[in-house]
Amino acid sequence: MNRVKNFNAGPAALPLPALERARLEFLDFAGSGMSVMEHSHRGKEYEACHDEAIALMKELLGVPDTHEVLFVQGGASQLFAQIPMNLVQKGGSADYVVTGAWSEKAVSEAKLATAMLGGSVRVACSTGTGDGKEKSYVRAPAPGEVKAADGAAYLHLTSNETIHGVQFDVSAARAFPATSAPLIADMSSDFLWKKVDVSKFGLLYAGAQKNIGPSGVVVMVMAKALIEQGRKDIPKIFQFRTPAENKSLYNTPPTFGIYMIRNVLSWLKGLGGLPAMEARNRKKAGVLYGAIDGNPGYFKCPVEKQSRSVMNVVFRLPTEADEERFVKEAKGKGMVGLKGHRSVGGIRVSAYNAVEPGWIDELAAFMGEFAKKG
Amino acid sequence: MNRVKNFNAGPAALPLPALERARLEFLDFAGSGMSVMEHSHRGKEYEACHDEAIALMKELLGVPDTHEVLFVQGGASQLFAQIPMNLVQKGGSADYVVTGAWSEKAVSEAKLATAMLGGSVRVACSTGTGDGKEKSYVRAPAPGEVKAADGAAYLHLTSNETIHGVQFDVSAARAFPATSAPLIADMSSDFLWKKVDVSKFGLLYAGAQKNIGPSGVVVMVMAKALIEQGRKDIPKIFQFRTPAENKSLYNTPPTFGIYMIRNVLSWLKGLGGLPAMEARNRKKAGVLYGAIDGNPGYFKCPVEKQSRSVMNVVFRLPTEADEERFVKEAKGKGMVGLKGHRSVGGIRVSAYNAVEPGWIDELAAFMGEFAKKG
Repeated sequence: MNRVKNFNAGPAALPLPALERARLEFLDFAGSGMSVMEHSHRGKEYEACHDEAIALMKELLGVPDTHEVLFVQGGASQLFAQIPMNLVQKGGSADYVVTGAWSEKAVSEAKLATAMLGGSVRVACSTGTGDGKEKSYVRAPAPGEVKAADGAAYLHLTSNETIHGVQFDVSAARAFPATSAPLIADMSSDFLWKKVDVSKFGLLYAGAQKNIGPSGVVVMVMAKALIEQGRKDIPKIFQFRTPAENKSLYNTPPTFGIYMIRNVLSWLKGLGGLPAMEARNRKKAGVLYGAIDGNPGYFKCPVEKQSRSVMNVVFRLPTEADEERFVKEAKGKGMVGLKGHRSVGGIRVSAYNAVEPGWIDELAAFMGEFAKKG
Repeated sequence: MNRVKNFNAGPAALPLPALERARLEFLDFAGSGMSVMEHSHRGKEYEACHDEAIALMKELLGVPDTHEVLFVQGGASQLFAQIPMNLVQKGGSADYVVTGAWSEKAVSEAKLATAMLGGSVRVACSTGTGDGKEKSYVRAPAPGEVKAADGAAYLHLTSNETIHGVQFDVSAARAFPATSAPLIADMSSDFLWKKVDVSKFGLLYAGAQKNIGPSGVVVMVMAKALIEQGRKDIPKIFQFRTPAENKSLYNTPPTFGIYMIRNVLSWLKGLGGLPAMEARNRKKAGVLYGAIDGNPGYFKCPVEKQSRSVMNVVFRLPTEADEERFVKEAKGKGMVGLKGHRSVGGIRVSAYNAVEPGWIDELAAFMGEFAKKG
């Protein structure tokens, strides 16, 4: 078996020890004589694993008693609709910060959801430039640039733009905004890479398939007070109180995905938790941006330094032909997943938690040689 | 490794060859150097597997060109809301047949969904008896008992009631109703156990975790004409045209679940497809009902003969203490998952596709001895 160095943007690399643990007990989970996938979600064996995943999440992230950890389905894209359905009352409005493609999508779904239920959406701040359909995004706003409207149901932001490589809170100048409205963050591509002060958020949520598990599970960390305020005139399955009141077991959850999250979190804890992970990730990003900035005539990162993503490092080469060659030669050396998103082109290195520092060192060395060769 | 005989109601037993295939390539899918879970859903390796799952579904079920196969998330419980959101227009109404706990749930969510969007719901037929909160259900209706209202958006039924052990279309007297409105069937617990005439259905759907894979994926087989009629004033993620126009790849799908479905369908095809599976399942059910009816003083199946489920065989013993002892002794012999649903009690044997005929023979022999012993 020859494992590659996987820089995919998501679904993405998973920690080998978490995968190996799953393989080892794939046909016989916890000595039960069946796969974890074959267990009832109401049985004690699965439930112990489900509970452990929630407990590890609370422990690693430091979730206070004011908040609940929920597992839901449908991807973060479904939450783009479900959040306004729950939280924007009739006649109410919600505020959005737009810093890239994913926050644009969140706004667009929120418009449909609020129109359906008699509310509205406002863009409180956008860092996009350009007149065309495809705006350019190269930065997160400074905290002072963002002001929620009086009475806004919430202020929504995308903490890391996976496609544009723009991240909040990687420098003090780009800290999360302070706001009177409940702060909601889509952390799909930068969940659990460092500590955040959960008490400052009404809700943070993330599709699992970047930093914490396979696709098909979304993790929510939500203030109980906000859950209670949710509308009751929408279907029960879409009300956040439903998973909250049923420990995310109202209907059958994606049990194998939650089991894999348990394995990943257990690996993360063994590595030293979020402080250790932040140090490891900052170092990886430093090596990559060093390789870019060290060859300024050849590589160019479009993102302003204060907003440069630690998770998704994007850059351009002199020509598209160079970029194609770069991806191809890297693949020949066992480094895959480096092509930028089709909407923006270029190169993207996704350096999520499971990406080993050694892979990054190897990639940076390759970048140096590639630039020298021209 | 000691695999048990798993009679769970869902998540349920999966075919051992499908699991073994997954274990073998768990860290290195199709020679790609990574797990199938670590692949991009837009990469050629995963996409080949995704396409194969759809193609196998079409082939096994005989899906005509008038229908699409879709993979969605959220469980069948989410479709209870999403179907009326899509298909009941403002001022419109939908009809429901109620034959047990799951159709009751479908009605209750449809009421919320239609109230939200200005429509309504009608129970066209219920076979429930009793005045209390918990109705008793022991049969499916005869085709002539069910009449859709003029102009109903659709007629919804639950083809197999997992909790009550009541199934449509297991005898000619309980065939699916002929209806002018599009027929929609929740086939979560009896999908792909025998051929059905897909052209007679506007939509059939099933949570994967009974007959075809792990939890976290729902399969829909939907008439293209019905997809097109869907409302456009609901969030895009909830419109069925969204997966239909994007080959179920609008946002990241539950890739591992779809991969497992591919493995299960490939096993099913190797076994001879649906005609072979129907023969195998009819025989299994025959053995079980034979063991019940062969000990009429000891076992009692509450369901009328013409509606007895081939998938979930339910029965009672003289006392609850006997039932507890039965479950316990069976477990001692490696037969698990036999306890009836907490809402109805008794014994339930789920004999889905992956349950081996040999396990059923062993269980039937155990039943005979248990009854004799008293």
